[in-house]
Amino acid sequence: MTGIGLIGYGYWGPNLARNFSDVANAQLTACCDLRQDRLDLLGQKYPKVQLSTSTADVIGNPKVDAVVIATPVSTHFRLAREALMAGKHVLIEKPMATSISEADELNMLAREKGLTLMVDHTFVYTGAVRKIKEIIDQGEMGEIYYFDSVRVNLGLFQHDSNVVWDLAPHDLSIMDYLIGRAPSAISAFGASHLGQGIENIAYLNLKFDDNLIAHIHINWLAPVKLRKTLISGTRKMIVYDDMETSEKVKVYDSGVSITEAPENIHHTLVQYRTGDMYAPKLDQREALSLECEHFIEAVVSGIDPATGGHAGRRIVAMLEAAQESLSEQGAWISVH
Amino acid sequence: MTGIGLIGYGYWGPNLARNFSDVANAQLTACCDLRQDRLDLLGQKYPKVQLSTSTADVIGNPKVDAVVIATPVSTHFRLAREALMAGKHVLIEKPMATSISEADELNMLAREKGLTLMVDHTFVYTGAVRKIKEIIDQGEMGEIYYFDSVRVNLGLFQHDSNVVWDLAPHDLSIMDYLIGRAPSAISAFGASHLGQGIENIAYLNLKFDDNLIAHIHINWLAPVKLRKTLISGTRKMIVYDDMETSEKVKVYDSGVSITEAPENIHHTLVQYRTGDMYAPKLDQREALSLECEHFIEAVVSGIDPATGGHAGRRIVAMLEAAQESLSEQGAWISVH
Amino acid sequence: MTGIGLIGYGYWGPNLARNFSDVANAQLTACCDLRQDRLDLLGQKYPKVQLSTSTADVIGNPKVDAVVIATPVSTHFRLAREALMAGKHVLIEKPMATSISEADELNMLAREKGLTLMVDHTFVYTGAVRKIKEIIDQGEMGEIYYFDSVRVNLGLFQHDSNVVWDLAPHDLSIMDYLIGRAPSAISAFGASHLGQGIENIAYLNLKFDDNLIAHIHINWLAPVKLRKTLISGTRKMIVYDDMETSEKVKVYDSGVSITEAPENIHHTLVQYRTGDMYAPKLDQREALSLECEHFIEAVVSGIDPATGGHAGRRIVAMLEAAQESLSEQGAWISVH
Amino acid sequence: MTGIGLIGYGYWGPNLARNFSDVANAQLTACCDLRQDRLDLLGQKYPKVQLSTSTADVIGNPKVDAVVIATPVSTHFRLAREALMAGKHVLIEKPMATSISEADELNMLAREKGLTLMVDHTFVYTGAVRKIKEIIDQGEMGEIYYFDSVRVNLGLFQHDSNVVWDLAPHDLSIMDYLIGRAPSAISAFGASHLGQGIENIAYLNLKFDDNLIAHIHINWLAPVKLRKTLISGTRKMIVYDDMETSEKVKVYDSGVSITEAPENIHHTLVQYRTGDMYAPKLDQREALSLECEHFIEAVVSGIDPATGGHAGRRIVAMLEAAQESLSEQGAWISVH
Repeated sequence: MTGIGLIGYGYWGPNLARNFSDVANAQLTACCDLRQDRLDLLGQKYPKVQLSTSTADVIGNPKVDAVVIATPVSTHFRLAREALMAGKHVLIEKPMATSISEADELNMLAREKGLTLMVDHTFVYTGAVRKIKEIIDQGEMGEIYYFDSVRVNLGLFQHDSNVVWDLAPHDLSIMDYLIGRAPSAISAFGASHLGQGIENIAYLNLKFDDNLIAHIHINWLAPVKLRKTLISGTRKMIVYDDMETSEKVKVYDSGVSITEAPENIHHTLVQYRTGDMYAPKLDQREALSLECEHFIEAVVSGIDPATGGHAGRRIVAMLEAAQESLSEQGAWISVH
Repeated sequence: MTGIGLIGYGYWGPNLARNFSDVANAQLTACCDLRQDRLDLLGQKYPKVQLSTSTADVIGNPKVDAVVIATPVSTHFRLAREALMAGKHVLIEKPMATSISEADELNMLAREKGLTLMVDHTFVYTGAVRKIKEIIDQGEMGEIYYFDSVRVNLGLFQHDSNVVWDLAPHDLSIMDYLIGRAPSAISAFGASHLGQGIENIAYLNLKFDDNLIAHIHINWLAPVKLRKTLISGTRKMIVYDDMETSEKVKVYDSGVSITEAPENIHHTLVQYRTGDMYAPKLDQREALSLECEHFIEAVVSGIDPATGGHAGRRIVAMLEAAQESLSEQGAWISVH
Repeated sequence: MTGIGLIGYGYWGPNLARNFSDVANAQLTACCDLRQDRLDLLGQKYPKVQLSTSTADVIGNPKVDAVVIATPVSTHFRLAREALMAGKHVLIEKPMATSISEADELNMLAREKGLTLMVDHTFVYTGAVRKIKEIIDQGEMGEIYYFDSVRVNLGLFQHDSNVVWDLAPHDLSIMDYLIGRAPSAISAFGASHLGQGIENIAYLNLKFDDNLIAHIHINWLAPVKLRKTLISGTRKMIVYDDMETSEKVKVYDSGVSITEAPENIHHTLVQYRTGDMYAPKLDQREALSLECEHFIEAVVSGIDPATGGHAGRRIVAMLEAAQESLSEQGAWISVH
Repeated sequence: MTGIGLIGYGYWGPNLARNFSDVANAQLTACCDLRQDRLDLLGQKYPKVQLSTSTADVIGNPKVDAVVIATPVSTHFRLAREALMAGKHVLIEKPMATSISEADELNMLAREKGLTLMVDHTFVYTGAVRKIKEIIDQGEMGEIYYFDSVRVNLGLFQHDSNVVWDLAPHDLSIMDYLIGRAPSAISAFGASHLGQGIENIAYLNLKFDDNLIAHIHINWLAPVKLRKTLISGTRKMIVYDDMETSEKVKVYDSGVSITEAPENIHHTLVQYRTGDMYAPKLDQREALSLECEHFIEAVVSGIDPATGGHAGRRIVAMLEAAQESLSEQGAWISVH
């Protein structure tokens, strides 16, 4: 039985508490939050959990084997570092840290201590994203041309991070998981419409070493909620619309091919293909539930998790490059 | 009665012929096309029209008062110039020309000759765009924050122009009409996936002198047809979805406002507003029909058309800047 | 503080337990279920609740002021009767009972004892239905022409009741609440496709004393989930689509009016009106939460609840008529 | 070359004229309409067509081999009869006639004279309906459980026929083509909300000799345009939504099967299946164009058309039964 210590019972913490409560071989053991009313709420639902307003009580608790960090991003590094130093496995909210150097240090620490370090890239565990991964890995798409993602709504403005750090981790982690390699450079363009210097809308351009490109539109100031990803390949094209209640993933047998006919010196022949579309059946289980199980499995067996510290580090590297590009008027910043 | 001479009876020419046939005070008088089979087709439908394979026969026809140019963009300047020199009013397909200098020369010539020069920015004449213009002009939106437009489908690859010159004139002309001022600089990012150096996907970032930004995604390689524009302002937000069969324009009483409360030195208070949505009734008449009427009205009365040569020149300036940015890896190019 | 005793912790019971836990002035005190594993589950979440496998332990518990019955419909009458006899207020799942006579007896008993008797017609408490009620009551719709409701999906086949008793209570209770008067007769047509004599698809026709008609399509054997209601009136028309994530209610300024022009002896002039559409902002609170609050308010203050025993009785009367019509090949059966 | 004589150039006539103009081996030769302005319009578009206000001029024209009747339904019988008597092939608008006896007489006459008699059931020639037919005929659906069709909008009220005769021919002819056998009886329920005795809303129930049922909702008084058909079978289920711009037909690998387990004397086991969905590629050609070609082919080769006079007669028989049921308060009327 893996004892879970939860730090932070704000927006996302309740979902983590609920899911870890239901995972076999895990037990929610301790929780801390700065606000007493949040602890009271948790206490009512999970009366056996030890409550505290101090993170030390969770990290230092000998019955806690793994620490789950659901706090503002600025505190991720310090808390994860303390937990790893104390010999605890760690699951951190996205994004993993505020800089590459922080992420690197956490990864090094986890390796030295032989501990599991995982990042909560929830979308990677959805039935939709796992099905797309399966389709891509089986070669059904052919070579990928582009990855285009839109994630907009009337979102909560945050005081300490912009829309890139808030929303882009979702799209970047989905892309990272599906594409399996990192972009070489990022260019970002955005605006802060409420005069606070915190971007509420941004567009990211991503280059890869080959012909693949990616683009992400994230936006807190839109009247409707859109979450739509287009992925085109040489053989198939996918539309992943997370706002659909069913049929979130549609696979189109559509495309274009070029024939260089010898008699056509001046023209190339472009042939269009529009065939059937299919919407594969998707696993309907809650993504966070699968993720919590996966974390426990990684803790127990020592396997590398699908969204481990290295995946977390790659996302932070992209965010850092995007942030630098925002400050430099959209200049291309290499992703290291 | 204004005699209309049509140059080009390819993809768009038949729509122009049909609409000018129905406009009061206009008469389709002459038409030329390089392909005899196209002329035969036109001859069957409009037996009174004089047919030719030579543009000179149309431009030189004394019964032709106005020349309508529906040919590839590379020929626009030469044909429009000839027509204006011959004292004919001119309506040109979008984009007006291939460069600012061409556009400037045509505008100068039209002014000197006292002739109407208009560009076929069809979307400006749709009920949807005219209704949005009305809403903006009445101040209902407040100050505009951003204009975001997506226009993608499995489109016809062209041999002589990329997706920016093919599709972006639609979004840029809608934006130009609605916003009423030009961007200061453009940055463009794209890719040519079929190895011909002609971009099939592109993303345009547009800066304005104030806090307004715009973004356009155009794409010939998408499995679904999307034509969706988001416009957010301080008071209202609009979603214009041209793929909807009804309710193309939705106006949301949604937004965010900032309160700088004195007791909140460290925090600003962000207040969210989500109210009713309404979809205004739209004029259902065919846009091209209104546009043809408007052209005849401009020819007869001498008024400046809503999409005159100066609007056409502004769009060409944006396209030229976007093209230059594409060649310079997304560098910001000033729009002159 | 009103003590709540819950009978049945199966499919719907957990929702009732969760919502009554959050209502001010109510306390979930006792619960029974035949299955021990369900009781264990409840015990984990609500450790202070007294558990039992016997209904008598709940009904007889002196700390229980109100009994909430979430059991199969065949047991509703017996359990509600026992609870009322024991002086407890009662909230029953829909449908209230299996016959008019049962419903009448429960209503009589509640009146004699001065107790609150309420039926869980959840949809009546949704923001969507309450908003439509407001629009109708303000006269915005004019006189109602028809109420048409479709509720289909790949639903769970039940062994003891057909699709009419399972799904139609939703549509009938919405209609009853919105229209405010009962149909005079019902005709029902259906089929049992799996050869068990239990209808999995049915169509109900409802007549009223005037020109109003209603129609309900309920179906357990459809590939997609549809929940769409059309309501047309002399002035406005409403589409209520419960599957929309936002904009569930759309109000159309559309209609038809007849002019009897004197010069038109042979023809009447029909005039069509298609104006703006608006989607009113809806209260997003969980319907069941409002309903539980409303029940406690009725218990405490003695007011008649919006979905009291008499509303429950009207729905049962319609179901009974529909069932009789099904057995009589769609004959019109009066609703008493 | 088959000479076509068109009677009626009102709402649908222009579509017939345009399509017959484009069919190989056919020539639009003569046309009549009571209104001179309609004839003028046709004359402008098709200057070689002989125009008249008298039907005799079309039917008696020796260059006319086939007469196309696009007039109000009350005139179909008389005009078709005259044309057949004159030795002309006939294509009639739906519905074919106002009664079974009229339809029978026309069919007899056509057989005696060896002439083609076809009814314009346009939807049968759509890519969507032909694809569904193919899927059903290949056995992919299994046995059909039900056919459910909704066709509603703010439709044009007619003075001489109700919504059943106006809209139901579409759904009935689609059903007739797909199912391949006739219902045994029909029950109809409707209302005339504008006080003229002409139903503007109606619901048709259809029984077949086996377990199959069908239902059709047609409505002129709805704020939105819906055209949605559900077809469920033992193996697959289809949703055909004609309002979708693409993906009009969706095939669901969903269903329910019953297992009579020996250990389950009291219960049957219902097993649910929800698998992939696919949207087959559809032929995008205009249905009326295919239909006109098919008519010419039938005229030339003598084959039985897919929507010949016997199909037309079956639809009229259903309409007649529905009309009788409307007058008899929804009584079941046998279809002969």
